[in-house]
Amino acid sequence: MAPKYKLTYFDFSGLGEPIRFIFHYAGIDFEDNRLNREQWAKLKPNAPLLQMPLLEVDGKTLHQSLAIARYVAKQVGLAGDNDFEAYEIDAAADTANDFRLAVVHYLSQQDPTIKQQFKEKLEDEKIPLYLNALDSWAKKNNGYLANGKISWADLYLVAVLGYLSYFLKRDLYEGYPNLKKVQDNVFANPGVNSWVQRRPTDHFPL
Amino acid sequence: MAPKYKLTYFDFSGLGEPIRFIFHYAGIDFEDNRLNREQWAKLKPNAPLLQMPLLEVDGKTLHQSLAIARYVAKQVGLAGDNDFEAYEIDAAADTANDFRLAVVHYLSQQDPTIKQQFKEKLEDEKIPLYLNALDSWAKKNNGYLANGKISWADLYLVAVLGYLSYFLKRDLYEGYPNLKKVQDNVFANPGVNSWVQRRPTDHFPL
Repeated sequence: MAPKYKLTYFDFSGLGEPIRFIFHYAGIDFEDNRLNREQWAKLKPNAPLLQMPLLEVDGKTLHQSLAIARYVAKQVGLAGDNDFEAYEIDAAADTANDFRLAVVHYLSQQDPTIKQQFKEKLEDEKIPLYLNALDSWAKKNNGYLANGKISWADLYLVAVLGYLSYFLKRDLYEGYPNLKKVQDNVFANPGVNSWVQRRPTDHFPL
Repeated sequence: MAPKYKLTYFDFSGLGEPIRFIFHYAGIDFEDNRLNREQWAKLKPNAPLLQMPLLEVDGKTLHQSLAIARYVAKQVGLAGDNDFEAYEIDAAADTANDFRLAVVHYLSQQDPTIKQQFKEKLEDEKIPLYLNALDSWAKKNNGYLANGKISWADLYLVAVLGYLSYFLKRDLYEGYPNLKKVQDNVFANPGVNSWVQRRPTDHFPL
């Protein structure tokens, strides 16, 4: 019998979205349990590390978004065919995640003067550093981040660049034509395409 | 023929040390290429994302420390026997890495007032949050972080807690008896034990 999956996260794309993308890509049914603030406040004290997303499967509750994404990707053949392919995918996904953390680090600054300094560093250094590297890998791999074929790293990047573009109020693909090809390749999948057409619009604050 | 490994990192434990631990645990020869500042300045422009560690193997250069550690761990049987075991190890290693990032985030603050605020948040919230969680997993798994047996997550945690204790000038194992058991289990390995006895002493700044 196919396992029953229940994903619990905010009513927002965020760190839940890469996992949602993997399920939709593979056409796997899952419960998309989207919590509002009150529901999360109730659950939070019992969540490992006080964090979401959480994935319930076969009576177990999984946490840590990258580890969940990799686990689900393995079940659907998106995690490489050998150890070296898996490494290439992991390194690309970790780089996408490092970029995410750099943006979040800027967004979380409270002091206006310091935030402005972070903004300049982000624009002048971090965004080019990470997106040039990712773009060069996408060029080498014909529109994929690793191994010349689709993997969960591509889905992870496209899910993350979507909501980071929203937060930064700019199109992060602009100037990175090979990353745009990654997005095209991910959105060409019927399951992802259908999900992106009908998914709830992000609103923040939640 | 056994692959030839060359690890390039600072002359410091840091993010190179979990990978060194895995090699020493498994008794695998590798070149421990420790760069001084001048050597690193020369290499840096050509390093992916301007970062170390780098691992050369079979004519390829690997980057991203967690992805490297997972790859090497797979070669020596420290990455779990099935997808769910691999997940448990990944989630534990990511948690150890999140803890590392929280400490680095504090250490990197320049403004004394803000740094003091970060210090209080680290001491009162972050350290207990992460180390209580890790300690509870170590308790459930009899002195290991996952699956009731040794994995690269244990080696990762012990390598990282070593140098974070050095930076924070305190023994991070104090008050966490089950993490101390993880350390005991890691140090019980003859290869790791011998390395820890003879490894270069960390000095900072490099």
